[in-house]
Amino acid sequence: MSSKGLLIVFSGPSGVGKGTVLKEYLAAHPDTHYSISATTRAPRPGEEHGREYYFISREQFQELIAKDGLLEYAEYSGNYYGTPKAPVQEALSQGRNVILEIEVQGAKRVLRENPQAVSLFIMPPSMKELTRRLVDRNTEDEATVRRRLDTARNEIAQAGIYDYIVVNDSLAKAVADMDSVLHAAGFSGKNADKLIEEVLKNA
Amino acid sequence: MSSKGLLIVFSGPSGVGKGTVLKEYLAAHPDTHYSISATTRAPRPGEEHGREYYFISREQFQELIAKDGLLEYAEYSGNYYGTPKAPVQEALSQGRNVILEIEVQGAKRVLRENPQAVSLFIMPPSMKELTRRLVDRNTEDEATVRRRLDTARNEIAQAGIYDYIVVNDSLAKAVADMDSVLHAAGFSGKNADKLIEEVLKNA
Repeated sequence: MSSKGLLIVFSGPSGVGKGTVLKEYLAAHPDTHYSISATTRAPRPGEEHGREYYFISREQFQELIAKDGLLEYAEYSGNYYGTPKAPVQEALSQGRNVILEIEVQGAKRVLRENPQAVSLFIMPPSMKELTRRLVDRNTEDEATVRRRLDTARNEIAQAGIYDYIVVNDSLAKAVADMDSVLHAAGFSGKNADKLIEEVLKNA
Repeated sequence: MSSKGLLIVFSGPSGVGKGTVLKEYLAAHPDTHYSISATTRAPRPGEEHGREYYFISREQFQELIAKDGLLEYAEYSGNYYGTPKAPVQEALSQGRNVILEIEVQGAKRVLRENPQAVSLFIMPPSMKELTRRLVDRNTEDEATVRRRLDTARNEIAQAGIYDYIVVNDSLAKAVADMDSVLHAAGFSGKNADKLIEEVLKNA
């Protein structure tokens, strides 16, 4: 539809399995660029600079803020997290689709500034199933699980603002559905300025 | 996503071949309900009541207006044209998708009143090709063709308000693209109130 790529805002509550859905999707679409966030928090064991995050200093982060170099950012428990603009813009201008995996508040900020973006929310089949998945991970204490479920409820209640909602019940179906909505998003009227111009021009 | 069907607003300029695209799509989706308009104009040779249009009297049409029985209506060259609500609502409540083939002004009215509807515009590859198709029909004089092209330019310029735009270059591809966007529309966040409610309820 357009020679430029699609900016895809991708969200879903903790425990819904969005990482797994995304990994499968990206494996099938190697040309899609996955945007890596920057953070000022320290890397955890096994995390690598440029893979999980860009680990940068507070000064570097504040410089990015100052020169409008972030699509969005937020501060949690004393650490900054944000989406560097430059790699996103570079990939889009090469005609590649870009996926931002981002929580609902950040998604709202990005969508406000980028109305041409397409947004996708991964939904659990039920809160019951989400609870089961979070408990089965067995990596967090009860209070943390409870807090994550509260956040999840809040995020799910806002899912209607997303262009598309895909339920992650079976992994294969969720990946196929994601594929199908992102394919269709290429036909969106909100990205059609250039197409309309070209059709009218060619008289 | 929802037990109710999708309301599909379907437009495109005269000569783009939307009738052919629609015919192929409906043949492949016999469960989709094609909404038939009502009009006060006289039937042309070969037209049948309940197939091309519901041919009704001016009094019957005004009664429909008075009792809010139309999704939209307009008057052209002294004749009324409109979309009766009842058959549309009945099909939607049975979970069937409903297609309204309608021009851009009517589409805007329907979309204003029915924000949950999905809208699709069939686009010619170029004005040059649209001109060729209109001339090749060989059914209209030059002045009519020129008038149709003016209307087409105006409609194409507004195509960006549609959720989806599909270019009718090859018929098979246009039908496949239509299929793919209408499938994806089933995942739209704007139809997800019920899904969100059910996920949150089932804790």
